[in-house]
Amino acid sequence: MEGYKMNYYAGVDLGGTNTKIGILNREGDILKSRIIKTLSAEGVDNTLERIWKTIQELAQELDINIKNIKGIGLGIPGPVLEQSIVAFFANFPWERNINIKEKLEKLTGIETKLDNDANIIALGEAKYGAAKGSKSSVTVALGTGIGGGIYIDGKLVSGAKGAGGEVGHMKIVKDGKLCGCGQRGCFEAYVSATGLIREAVSRLTVNKQNLLYKMIDGDLMKLEAKDIFDAAREGDAFSLELVDYEAEYLALGIANILNIINPEVVVLGGGVALAGDILLNPMREKMVKYALPVTLEELQIVQGVLGNEAGIKGAVGLFN
Amino acid sequence: MEGYKMNYYAGVDLGGTNTKIGILNREGDILKSRIIKTLSAEGVDNTLERIWKTIQELAQELDINIKNIKGIGLGIPGPVLEQSIVAFFANFPWERNINIKEKLEKLTGIETKLDNDANIIALGEAKYGAAKGSKSSVTVALGTGIGGGIYIDGKLVSGAKGAGGEVGHMKIVKDGKLCGCGQRGCFEAYVSATGLIREAVSRLTVNKQNLLYKMIDGDLMKLEAKDIFDAAREGDAFSLELVDYEAEYLALGIANILNIINPEVVVLGGGVALAGDILLNPMREKMVKYALPVTLEELQIVQGVLGNEAGIKGAVGLFN
Repeated sequence: MEGYKMNYYAGVDLGGTNTKIGILNREGDILKSRIIKTLSAEGVDNTLERIWKTIQELAQELDINIKNIKGIGLGIPGPVLEQSIVAFFANFPWERNINIKEKLEKLTGIETKLDNDANIIALGEAKYGAAKGSKSSVTVALGTGIGGGIYIDGKLVSGAKGAGGEVGHMKIVKDGKLCGCGQRGCFEAYVSATGLIREAVSRLTVNKQNLLYKMIDGDLMKLEAKDIFDAAREGDAFSLELVDYEAEYLALGIANILNIINPEVVVLGGGVALAGDILLNPMREKMVKYALPVTLEELQIVQGVLGNEAGIKGAVGLFN
Repeated sequence: MEGYKMNYYAGVDLGGTNTKIGILNREGDILKSRIIKTLSAEGVDNTLERIWKTIQELAQELDINIKNIKGIGLGIPGPVLEQSIVAFFANFPWERNINIKEKLEKLTGIETKLDNDANIIALGEAKYGAAKGSKSSVTVALGTGIGGGIYIDGKLVSGAKGAGGEVGHMKIVKDGKLCGCGQRGCFEAYVSATGLIREAVSRLTVNKQNLLYKMIDGDLMKLEAKDIFDAAREGDAFSLELVDYEAEYLALGIANILNIINPEVVVLGGGVALAGDILLNPMREKMVKYALPVTLEELQIVQGVLGNEAGIKGAVGLFN
C-alpha cells in the first residue's frame, strides 16, 4: 500500500506562450502546479530543460523523492506519432519529427509519453472528468478552433499520423465556407467561436436593429461568442437565429461522429459549450435529423468539467 | 506444436436468405464451408440448431474432433452489443435483444462471439485480407447499401450500441437526397451502387444520346453500376460524368473518415469498388480537397480481397 501511494506523475501542457506543469497522484489529483513561459524561440532543448527543472522544484516543494515520479506525460500542439514523436509543432520554430519521448527520457531518466493536446484533453475528461466511468467518449472542444479526441476502451484513437480525432476538419458542407486550414466546408468554419462570430458579423453588417448590435456599441471588432448567447437569453430574435445556426451545424457534425464512432458520451468543451442549455437543448432536438436513432439511445451529451486542468490531468492519464 | 495445430474455429455469416458456415484454422484458412438456408421464419432456435448441426457435420467430414473447435464466430445483420446481444435483426422476424452468445454457448458448449456483419468483413480484411499487417484500417463496402467497419490495434470499434463504423449514414450533404433510412444527405444515398444508379436514371430520363442508354437498350430497370463503369471505359462522356460524381462524393466521405480516424489503410469493397482505377484514381485526386494533408501521408487505399469469404474469415478473427 505504501509503495502504491508513493507513485506520482508529472503532467505537462505545452502551449504556444505558456506551459503548465503539475505533479499529480495516481488518481489524477493535482498536488501542485506551476506555469512557466514556453519560450519556444530558445529551442526545444532549452524548453525541455526548464520543464524538467520545474518538475524537480515542484517535487521538492511537495517533499516527493524524484525517484517516485513514475512518468512524465505531455500534451503537444501538433500531431504525435506513437506517443513519442511530434510530426510538427503548430506555431513553434522547432524542426519536424522530433522524438520528444527520447529527449526527455534521456534528460530525466523517467518514462515519458505524449499525445496531441486535444487528444490529451479528451483523455483527461474520459479518465478524470465529465466522461469518467464510461467505456467510450468523444470530446469536442469548441474554442477559437475545434479540437477533438476519441477515447475507446481505455485508449485514445491517436491515428496513424497523429491526426485521430481531428473532427474540426470534417467537411459538413461540400464546397462550403473557407476554413483557416485552406479547405472548404469544415466543421470548424461553422461552429467554432470564430465560425459563429464570423456568421454574426456577416449578418450584423446588414442588420443593426437588434440587441446584440447595441450590446457591442456597434463595434463589430468587440464581438465575442458569449455576447451572442447573452443577447439570445434576453430574447433578442436576431441572436436566437444565430444560436439556431450554431445548434444546427453542431447537431450535424456531432451526429456524423456518432454515426462513425457510436460513443457512450459526448463531452463538449471550450468557450462555446459554456453557453449551456440555450445551445445544447436545440442541438439535441436537431440531432434526430442527422444521427442514426440507435446512436442516440442512452447517449449522454455533457459539458466538460476539467477546464484549464484538462491538459495536465489528461497527460497523466497516459499512464493509467 | 501439436496442441496448437489442433485449434479450429467455426465462422458463420448469417444472411437474410443464406447462411455460410466454415471451419477454419487459426491462420484464418477455410478448410471446408457450406451454405444453408437461414429460414428465419422458423425462429431463432431452429436456425441456431441447424447452424450447429452443420458445424458438427463439417467437423466430422474434416475428421476434426468437435472438442478442438475452440470458438464460434458470427457476423450478424444488425447492431451487436458487446459481441453477445443483437439489438435487432434487420429483416428477420426475431425479437429484440436476443443474447445469441448465451444461446449458442448453451447449445454447443463452445465459446461464441459475434459482431455486426459489416464490422466482421472489416475484421476479415484487417486480419487476413487487404489490410493484413497494418495497425489500423477502415473498410467501406459499397454495395446496394454501404457497410463499414473500423479496426484499430487488433480490435473493432463496435460502438456503445453496436453502430460503430456505420459510415453509410454520415451526412455528406446537409438536407440532401433522401436515404432509405429516412434521413437526408447520407453517404449511402450518393455513393452506394443504388445511389449511383439512381443518379444515372435521373440523368438518363432527360439525356438518351449516350452509350450507356444504348447498352441497356433504353431499359432503365436493367441498369447496373457495372454498366456505368463499362461505358465510361469506352469513353462515353455521359458515363464519365457519372463516374466523376461517384468519385467526388466518395472522396468527400472517405476524407471525413480519415479526418476522424486517420487509419493506415482504407479498404474499399463491394460491387462499386470492383470498378478499380477508373473510379479510384479520380477519387484519390479529389481527396486532396477534403482530407487533412497529414492523413494522406503514406495512406494506402486498396480494394478488398476476401470477397464472399470475408464474412466467415472475419468471424474467426474475433478469436485471434
